[in-house]
Amino acid sequence: MDNIPDGHPREKSLRSRQKIVEGSSKGLLAGSAMIAHGRGEAFDYLLGERTTESARSAIRESAIRLRSANNPVISVNGNTVLLAGKEALRLAAVLRCPIEVSLFYRTPERVSGLVSLLEEQRMDVLEESPPEGYEGNWVDSVRVVPLLGSSPDFRIDGLRGPRSHCTKEGIGSADLILVPLEDGDRCEALVNLGKEVIVIDLNPLSRSSRMATITIVDEVSRAFKEILLELVSDSINASTEWDNALALRDSLREMTEFLNDF
Amino acid sequence: MDNIPDGHPREKSLRSRQKIVEGSSKGLLAGSAMIAHGRGEAFDYLLGERTTESARSAIRESAIRLRSANNPVISVNGNTVLLAGKEALRLAAVLRCPIEVSLFYRTPERVSGLVSLLEEQRMDVLEESPPEGYEGNWVDSVRVVPLLGSSPDFRIDGLRGPRSHCTKEGIGSADLILVPLEDGDRCEALVNLGKEVIVIDLNPLSRSSRMATITIVDEVSRAFKEILLELVSDSINASTEWDNALALRDSLREMTEFLNDF
Repeated sequence: MDNIPDGHPREKSLRSRQKIVEGSSKGLLAGSAMIAHGRGEAFDYLLGERTTESARSAIRESAIRLRSANNPVISVNGNTVLLAGKEALRLAAVLRCPIEVSLFYRTPERVSGLVSLLEEQRMDVLEESPPEGYEGNWVDSVRVVPLLGSSPDFRIDGLRGPRSHCTKEGIGSADLILVPLEDGDRCEALVNLGKEVIVIDLNPLSRSSRMATITIVDEVSRAFKEILLELVSDSINASTEWDNALALRDSLREMTEFLNDF
Repeated sequence: MDNIPDGHPREKSLRSRQKIVEGSSKGLLAGSAMIAHGRGEAFDYLLGERTTESARSAIRESAIRLRSANNPVISVNGNTVLLAGKEALRLAAVLRCPIEVSLFYRTPERVSGLVSLLEEQRMDVLEESPPEGYEGNWVDSVRVVPLLGSSPDFRIDGLRGPRSHCTKEGIGSADLILVPLEDGDRCEALVNLGKEVIVIDLNPLSRSSRMATITIVDEVSRAFKEILLELVSDSINASTEWDNALALRDSLREMTEFLNDF
């Protein structure tokens, strides 16, 4: 797995897997995080490892709502930082919003390890070109992205234990939370607090997929990139009524169509 | 994850996951074994976490061929030993065949760790009742099951590196190999040597599923239990022509039917 040939048909999937294996061996992931990644791999396989039409609709609507939110926040766990930390930073820079490390199996060591990794990724993003069409000062925008989570000073009502901890500056005062790979209970608790919750999850049948305001059924780094493209494009439209149950049925239909093609 | 409530709708799946997480923390699994388990979880979910009709047909045909093979062997990797080591021992006792630990990422430590775990599981199986209908001496049959793999003295033609290593007594001289969770290359190499290969794999699209003589698209412990039931039943029939491609299409159809029910 260390030598993935360039041009291998499943190169991206294999590189993602490698990132997760390496992150796990560095102690950045909880025990079952690799299993969760494997589940995602299977569902992504059924999507054809691409952003489907229904995901694209969800991404467009998400970009509109992210742009008009007062206090958006991007909530990330270990898998998200490993797979798409740089993409999260690019999005946060454009949105001028914080990133909060928020873990289901929270330990202070893992939170600070992930914040440190995000700081390293920030150095890389500073060297990158801004997204085409972005008109702000890229370096300044990337530099000021707050990386939260190390000092939780707030609790999510309706949850118990360490997974209820969050920061007031981030999730606590957010009106919209973009959260890949969330657990169902926490998604439900956040929705019950009146927040808009945009979930990115490859399993359209998961509880968080079904609880979210909008579910983007897509791989997290692909989804982040596509949201960014929408945000910096001029073609962004007004928000619409969003029928998430209908969108999830569309994702399932896309999977069955893929299976039927074999 | 440590306290799985009895009667939880997904209790079996959660207990399997726990076994894999624990085995990994004991160093019995390669880095990506948990990811493979997660992929399996997703596909099993799409099967409704049950032995489907098409899997049952594959199991019946497999039992017939296992019974009539001259030198069958059960090839196991880390995930199989953790999830279904005792079921493998029960099967091997009835078939009077060896079990060989055969790893894709082979290290002497992991092989000997898994052989030791199988020895512990053998002690448990000795205490269990024999399968209903079994007429031999259970204790003797369980006691004599050879546990191979620690001292490879043979190579699988057509493969290179550690994953080509095997024992002459086991895989080397086998005419039929029952191998859950095999990798595609090795499956192909074994088939090319003229051996019958029965694969147990939850992903009907995997290369090993497509290379095998017979593919049982089912979770490994369920499949082992069902094969055992077939072996000790009187109703066993003659072997038939087996169209594995057709059987795999049936599995896919069962998955799409499951998805369509949402």
